[in-house]
Amino acid sequence: MMRFLSLSVAVLLLAGSARGQFVRTEVTLPDIPPYKTLMCDFHTHTVFSDGNVWPTVRVDEAWSQGYDAIAVTDHIEYQPHREYIPIQYNASYEIARPRGEREGLIVIRGCEVTRVMPPGHLNAIFIEDASLIQTKRIGEMFAHDHRRGDYLDSIDHHHQDYLLALEEAVRQHGFVFWNHPGWAPQAKDGIKLWDVHRELIAKGWIRGIEVANHAEWYPEAFQWCLDYHLALLGNSDVHETEQIYERKARIARRPATLVFARERSEAGIREALDSARTAVWFNDMVLGPEKLLRPLAAAAIAVTGPFFVDGEGTRYYSVRNATDLPLTLTDTASGEQLDLLPRSSVVTKAAKEVKARSFSVKNFLVGPSDTLAVRLPFD
Amino acid sequence: MMRFLSLSVAVLLLAGSARGQFVRTEVTLPDIPPYKTLMCDFHTHTVFSDGNVWPTVRVDEAWSQGYDAIAVTDHIEYQPHREYIPIQYNASYEIARPRGEREGLIVIRGCEVTRVMPPGHLNAIFIEDASLIQTKRIGEMFAHDHRRGDYLDSIDHHHQDYLLALEEAVRQHGFVFWNHPGWAPQAKDGIKLWDVHRELIAKGWIRGIEVANHAEWYPEAFQWCLDYHLALLGNSDVHETEQIYERKARIARRPATLVFARERSEAGIREALDSARTAVWFNDMVLGPEKLLRPLAAAAIAVTGPFFVDGEGTRYYSVRNATDLPLTLTDTASGEQLDLLPRSSVVTKAAKEVKARSFSVKNFLVGPSDTLAVRLPFD
Amino acid sequence: MMRFLSLSVAVLLLAGSARGQFVRTEVTLPDIPPYKTLMCDFHTHTVFSDGNVWPTVRVDEAWSQGYDAIAVTDHIEYQPHREYIPIQYNASYEIARPRGEREGLIVIRGCEVTRVMPPGHLNAIFIEDASLIQTKRIGEMFAHDHRRGDYLDSIDHHHQDYLLALEEAVRQHGFVFWNHPGWAPQAKDGIKLWDVHRELIAKGWIRGIEVANHAEWYPEAFQWCLDYHLALLGNSDVHETEQIYERKARIARRPATLVFARERSEAGIREALDSARTAVWFNDMVLGPEKLLRPLAAAAIAVTGPFFVDGEGTRYYSVRNATDLPLTLTDTASGEQLDLLPRSSVVTKAAKEVKARSFSVKNFLVGPSDTLAVRLPFD
Amino acid sequence: MMRFLSLSVAVLLLAGSARGQFVRTEVTLPDIPPYKTLMCDFHTHTVFSDGNVWPTVRVDEAWSQGYDAIAVTDHIEYQPHREYIPIQYNASYEIARPRGEREGLIVIRGCEVTRVMPPGHLNAIFIEDASLIQTKRIGEMFAHDHRRGDYLDSIDHHHQDYLLALEEAVRQHGFVFWNHPGWAPQAKDGIKLWDVHRELIAKGWIRGIEVANHAEWYPEAFQWCLDYHLALLGNSDVHETEQIYERKARIARRPATLVFARERSEAGIREALDSARTAVWFNDMVLGPEKLLRPLAAAAIAVTGPFFVDGEGTRYYSVRNATDLPLTLTDTASGEQLDLLPRSSVVTKAAKEVKARSFSVKNFLVGPSDTLAVRLPFD
Repeated sequence: MMRFLSLSVAVLLLAGSARGQFVRTEVTLPDIPPYKTLMCDFHTHTVFSDGNVWPTVRVDEAWSQGYDAIAVTDHIEYQPHREYIPIQYNASYEIARPRGEREGLIVIRGCEVTRVMPPGHLNAIFIEDASLIQTKRIGEMFAHDHRRGDYLDSIDHHHQDYLLALEEAVRQHGFVFWNHPGWAPQAKDGIKLWDVHRELIAKGWIRGIEVANHAEWYPEAFQWCLDYHLALLGNSDVHETEQIYERKARIARRPATLVFARERSEAGIREALDSARTAVWFNDMVLGPEKLLRPLAAAAIAVTGPFFVDGEGTRYYSVRNATDLPLTLTDTASGEQLDLLPRSSVVTKAAKEVKARSFSVKNFLVGPSDTLAVRLPFD
Repeated sequence: MMRFLSLSVAVLLLAGSARGQFVRTEVTLPDIPPYKTLMCDFHTHTVFSDGNVWPTVRVDEAWSQGYDAIAVTDHIEYQPHREYIPIQYNASYEIARPRGEREGLIVIRGCEVTRVMPPGHLNAIFIEDASLIQTKRIGEMFAHDHRRGDYLDSIDHHHQDYLLALEEAVRQHGFVFWNHPGWAPQAKDGIKLWDVHRELIAKGWIRGIEVANHAEWYPEAFQWCLDYHLALLGNSDVHETEQIYERKARIARRPATLVFARERSEAGIREALDSARTAVWFNDMVLGPEKLLRPLAAAAIAVTGPFFVDGEGTRYYSVRNATDLPLTLTDTASGEQLDLLPRSSVVTKAAKEVKARSFSVKNFLVGPSDTLAVRLPFD
Repeated sequence: MMRFLSLSVAVLLLAGSARGQFVRTEVTLPDIPPYKTLMCDFHTHTVFSDGNVWPTVRVDEAWSQGYDAIAVTDHIEYQPHREYIPIQYNASYEIARPRGEREGLIVIRGCEVTRVMPPGHLNAIFIEDASLIQTKRIGEMFAHDHRRGDYLDSIDHHHQDYLLALEEAVRQHGFVFWNHPGWAPQAKDGIKLWDVHRELIAKGWIRGIEVANHAEWYPEAFQWCLDYHLALLGNSDVHETEQIYERKARIARRPATLVFARERSEAGIREALDSARTAVWFNDMVLGPEKLLRPLAAAAIAVTGPFFVDGEGTRYYSVRNATDLPLTLTDTASGEQLDLLPRSSVVTKAAKEVKARSFSVKNFLVGPSDTLAVRLPFD
Repeated sequence: MMRFLSLSVAVLLLAGSARGQFVRTEVTLPDIPPYKTLMCDFHTHTVFSDGNVWPTVRVDEAWSQGYDAIAVTDHIEYQPHREYIPIQYNASYEIARPRGEREGLIVIRGCEVTRVMPPGHLNAIFIEDASLIQTKRIGEMFAHDHRRGDYLDSIDHHHQDYLLALEEAVRQHGFVFWNHPGWAPQAKDGIKLWDVHRELIAKGWIRGIEVANHAEWYPEAFQWCLDYHLALLGNSDVHETEQIYERKARIARRPATLVFARERSEAGIREALDSARTAVWFNDMVLGPEKLLRPLAAAAIAVTGPFFVDGEGTRYYSVRNATDLPLTLTDTASGEQLDLLPRSSVVTKAAKEVKARSFSVKNFLVGPSDTLAVRLPFD
């Protein structure tokens, strides 16, 4: 705070000012050749459903935070602002897309299919027309006012038409995933995989699950993704401005889906999702399949040295993390911890005869309770 | 950044999380009895004109930043989102007001009357119905699409109907002030007070001027306020989210109008504006009339001591600023500088015989080029 | 980071610069009348033992962080720099004291009596002459070089002379407390209260225990303090610079002892310590006896309102924390959480008939596993 | 601040904590092949002259801030702590060096030769033995106590023995540079190059000048470096802890000398200094010869795209700065400003026919009042 005051009085007395340019903070992530590592958020809202920002804000925020892609996924059955804003299912995408094109941010068309549990909330992205996925019957149900929350219970379980909606989404070649499976209002008795989900997964209609959403993550969902070879998603579900969102959630960074794509393009992202080649960055954790997290960690860490050898032949090395991902390593044998904060390095030693050391990367989870094991050369 | 990583691995592995509560950061400002010092922003936009946030966001942002009051002042002649959002002149206030009531933030109804120069842009606040201030003729002129900027030159100077608009605003007991008088697109040949403004001021139809707007401040406007006994206004003119706004403007805090009110209420603010009892907080500067800034500074600064006397009788004192306003004092005699950063103190000395010292408060301007003089007791 | 770049090019091209003044960041703590709440650190080191800063640095750092008092407590049996700096037991105090006098920071003479467990390390403060507490025999033992750590085990348990040292400390009217009772190198089998400590407590020779030290706190020690009516101490044990200390410990603020004193003076602090009128501020926690923490919390929290009443008679209130202590309240009945961050407020409601609400202050511990209960008026 | 409170209560109640590891924040600087860009500070003090930290602190601080090398340059004629610390001219280096070896920070032996103006203060680095450079006669002069400041005027101008000192430094193959030539106490009538300096430069005894020191920079000295082909130096002259130093100076980062070396080694640095292959990083500015700053800027900036072409053939590009140096570009033709903050990017456009654009890098000075011109490809 103090530093903002460092402007000299000379400056204070200058009148006028050029308005500053909008700047993107780049996030350095390690690529996994032949894949590029892209940072994505596939779950966002705008004023066209229950969000509170114009669609361009979603683009500007994501662009300035270093994202590669977002999907705008307004609810198609829930529009609390409709007294002021007539319902238009594709408007948020149509407004956001051109902004993204001019900023270099990939914007993906999507919508949120909003049902009671099961199946709960589902995002369909890479769709062609959200208005066709919205089913008339649900639309009618919400023609009168509902307060948020109430509407969740007002749908007759036995006559849900979500299958029609998903069928249409799939017909449009959409990619559908299950949102926040452990969200308290829909998982009062705990998170669980319903038969409905198993069926949808078996049909290929659900192809991913949010393992992290907002300020939560769901270990069970992580396991389901591994079991059924589904894409892990980590999304913000942001409704407010990013600043209010982070302030309320007490987090420094919204959850992100890391996508390992052959190219930085909409098609590249789609191919990676279809191949379940994703991981989740949630606060200080990275969650994903071992075959992806191992090369990711390897690409992030560089051991250099030895730059010093003491009298007993102990060699001193630098272990550096050149990326924005944190990595917390614990030596499997000695318990020594290496805190590889973003863009930092630490010093560690290797005894005379040691050629390599084994570590557990405590914040890289390859299963709900399994940390990544890596072996680093010290030679 | 490092510190965000201090969560232990034990925490990382905990699933789930309670979503945090929304918190207001209180700003400590010194009161000037019998007046309370209120922090206000009388110039903000929403999706109902050319802003990009839902009106509740304006309330949430201001509340969380410690503001006491805002006015929502959407343009009544410029609605670039009207393809998606039907024009409703009072909607932003009607949506923002209830949110403000529940958060304890005063929300004032306003609108921006948008004309070429002169008179340029004018805000009317404390109005009753913005739709009546909007004049049909201008409405028609903008019935077809104009890109922002172009429309400024498209109005026939000789047939402007701004007088009708202001007459209606005044009829509604509105308080009208002139926005960003030195804004480059409307002040290409430099800032100046037009005859039009002199007439409006003489009639009491313009009762304040923005001395600071966004990342700019206007020394000439400061002088005009002093000359004509007008309220000094410092407003954000925020269109985007606060975060994007501050990031683009490269400022740590949007401009604020400090209102010295008999009570924290809409009526209290109005009475203070009518009495021109305001100052402007712009970055590290405070601008205002001497009779207001002197007690403001006096209320912020506390000299305590002496807590030590050296061998030559020199006494050591603490000079403390318990507020969030910065104060930079320079001793008129010795040139010693006391940097009273927010909520901080410094040590200074007084020679044996000294009973008081005179300072210039470098960042408190009581005129375009005059700093506040204060005398502090050292006894 | 971005904001540091906001200096205009005009500034960049200015040559020269006035060097800034040293500023103290004030920490706002609630007083408990008739007591003043003082922030103190009774355990610090300098180059005169195994610390790495000149004694004035200890004063400057503490002063600039808003402390009221520190003790300099260099080891009297361990001087790893003695090859360069001849051993002088009182030097750190003699150098620090005058600096403190001129900054308004109270500096207390102390020393650390360093033994194997039991009794482990003990600080004697408010002493008259550290050189008399240092006992010759131990001095001889360390006349030759020992690496830190080794020396801990090199002392014959059966012939320790710590009683001589403590006897002298007490003769000098010193106040003796037990340092970091759970420090791993001396508590390999877990923290425990030895008979030695019980005897010293019974004799009044140990009158306080560090419940927090560096990045650790010790619940058991908290209980011992309550059981034996001892002063709770929270100290930094800082050896490096504060910046390196905090960076290594991954903490935002070193532990502090909150002293509730009749006056802000050395005598005032001593009287409070003798009366065990202290609490510990450790990261986001405050630890202390209920009779002290209850008025402390009460003095920090202000409920104002109602500022709004809805249609059902529900009243809206602001709950404000004007201090730098965080308070996390949970409503005992509803579970609602109020995060009273430093200098912030939140909004909460009270149903029509409610006159008061009961909360648990989650981060104010009045016992190792007991949180403070408070009742706040909503009327 | 808020975020530090994000620790859940679960964490708060955990007792104990592993003490964190010391982490180096890496600073990303662009290399200029075949040279590596090293960040160095050739002017630092410790308790062995008038500094206030143990020599290892100088190493730890620089290492943790991403430095490649420091010189420890204690005054050899001014030891205000000598009442407690016997004068030892080489002690600071001997203590710092082993620490540096184990951290991978290059530590260079140096001393400050301290005289009245002319020649003022001179640093000799890469020396063999500081005690031989200290001349006995000066030593005697300061055998009794002098307060800092007074001693500057107490030396007889006509009988200075600085030539003896420099002769010895040169005999030891030392590299000598002139410190803070515009330091107010020695440049009361303004900064100037004395005949003494011209002679020493001509003899090759002065081979560099501090163009930046602490919170100051000296445009005239920049020109002298260019005129006489001397190494530009930017050094901290830190005496206190880094934290207190930055807090007092109101700077975010101490001045650094950028050394363009064939290898990261003491010899590599020396060869670069001898070749005057250096630049200065001072706050947000970089100062240096055009032939060095041009490739430095080129290596920092990457133009990628176009990623979008609009209807008129205007192409959209990303301009990215992957380094920790800020670059502020202004388009020579249009005046458009690109604020390339550290590790960020901006979007800019190129009209259909444009193949390249010319910019002035406002914060890269290639002379006291000349900014670097660069041309970037847009094709």
